[in-house]
Amino acid sequence: MRLAILGLGLIGGSLGLALRAAQPTLEIVGWDRDWASCGLALERGAITLAAVTPAEAVATADLVVLATPIGVVRELLAAIAPAVRAGAVVTDVASTKAQVIAWAAEAGVPFVGGHPMAGSEKTGMTHARVNLFRGATWCVTPDGASPPGGAETVEEVARLVGARPLRLEPAEHDAYVAAISHLPFATAAALVALTTADPRWPSMAELAATGYRDVTRLASGSPTMYRDISTTNAGAIAPLLRGLAARLTTLADELDDPAKVEAFFKGAREAREAWLASHERFRLPG
Amino acid sequence: MRLAILGLGLIGGSLGLALRAAQPTLEIVGWDRDWASCGLALERGAITLAAVTPAEAVATADLVVLATPIGVVRELLAAIAPAVRAGAVVTDVASTKAQVIAWAAEAGVPFVGGHPMAGSEKTGMTHARVNLFRGATWCVTPDGASPPGGAETVEEVARLVGARPLRLEPAEHDAYVAAISHLPFATAAALVALTTADPRWPSMAELAATGYRDVTRLASGSPTMYRDISTTNAGAIAPLLRGLAARLTTLADELDDPAKVEAFFKGAREAREAWLASHERFRLPG
Repeated sequence: MRLAILGLGLIGGSLGLALRAAQPTLEIVGWDRDWASCGLALERGAITLAAVTPAEAVATADLVVLATPIGVVRELLAAIAPAVRAGAVVTDVASTKAQVIAWAAEAGVPFVGGHPMAGSEKTGMTHARVNLFRGATWCVTPDGASPPGGAETVEEVARLVGARPLRLEPAEHDAYVAAISHLPFATAAALVALTTADPRWPSMAELAATGYRDVTRLASGSPTMYRDISTTNAGAIAPLLRGLAARLTTLADELDDPAKVEAFFKGAREAREAWLASHERFRLPG
Repeated sequence: MRLAILGLGLIGGSLGLALRAAQPTLEIVGWDRDWASCGLALERGAITLAAVTPAEAVATADLVVLATPIGVVRELLAAIAPAVRAGAVVTDVASTKAQVIAWAAEAGVPFVGGHPMAGSEKTGMTHARVNLFRGATWCVTPDGASPPGGAETVEEVARLVGARPLRLEPAEHDAYVAAISHLPFATAAALVALTTADPRWPSMAELAATGYRDVTRLASGSPTMYRDISTTNAGAIAPLLRGLAARLTTLADELDDPAKVEAFFKGAREAREAWLASHERFRLPG
């Protein structure tokens, strides 16, 4: 099997490193619009060849992984469509699936959606690491137009790098990540936007501590990535934003009812503790 | 100076440990409704004497620190009022100030509000530690009825345990902590309540990862503490809950406008990074 990885940032670079660690003889053609990333990927052994154009990179590949920001995936699919080999499979790593699948269909590319649930605020090839996917869930979302065996190929790659493949319907995937990933980052950003807009923020900031820091951590993520996710998954995110707004309004209405307020916080704590207990890998050290 | 600490949990116990580490000859009379906490506090040297009743504990004290849950502060103030020495000062550590100050006035106790911005999900005397207050901000909120010199006494205690005293108006304090502490825990709980109520939560839970864990961390805090804070600071918290609800609704309305969405996330990231940059102590290790 010969691979192509388009986009050599944190995800693409780490994928190359992990695959080559698992199969040292594997050939991986890489492409990135930034030459420095290509050079570093070659130097670190994340890829074995660097291509000058996306079309050249995919010409000999059995599996193509699109690992660029979602904002350029549509044009990338159009650019590689004429060059993809017969029998090859194209997959991606984007955070939303239905929109990307529609773009692949539009370009006529044999496609299986993928989404490794791994990442970091530290982006770029310089932060790529061989163990990024170890223990992570890797969503695989074939649709009616996906080539036969394509999902199995993507799942094999996920297993090779230590991830746990999880097959989902594209719409199902988008609804789930809207709730557990997109709503959280939007909420964190809204909390920062609201509090820092207060004219008294400079004084408040003196009191903000680890609680504020942790609840707002996701607000420090990439604005362009958040923009792309928000716009490509708006249908799933918007009702959640409204649902959370309604829940906060109800809480405001009930603040003078100690029993209701306690029941609300008790329910939330129990639900979170149950999740942590059943997902030991997310327990904090210590 | 002789101290009394009423309530020997994480805060009261750590305060005793830190004060006695700073001044090994200091006498501290302790009281807790739970005998095991009293025993452990004596054993660990957080207090030098244990009293059987709150009134006995305060009888010889120059400074009394109320470190119980806010839910029992009102009755505690009434119980100690007849026993507080002339010239003594009573302070507290509760998360909201205007309500506690009103209770102190009602009981006729010479009072200066206090609020060390330190804590942990790990509560109780067993988790008390000598360095809990090191580098923390300790709010001191004297009001018109506070005894002369009372604020200075509390500030001296704060400095002794390595905290940075910060003098604020009680209403100012309550507005600030509503924004940087109470709104965040309420939001975290609402996020958990909303997502875990979805019938598809068991599947979603498989995808929830470190982002979801961190943004919801505060939802694991004590429901009774959150209830007491929410009800005693409802006036400051309710408008913030409504403000956040409005911000989330606006975002939902604008999700199809990439430029507005990007500007929103960019602004939030910049504001958070500016806060982190000016408050180095909250940077995460590594």
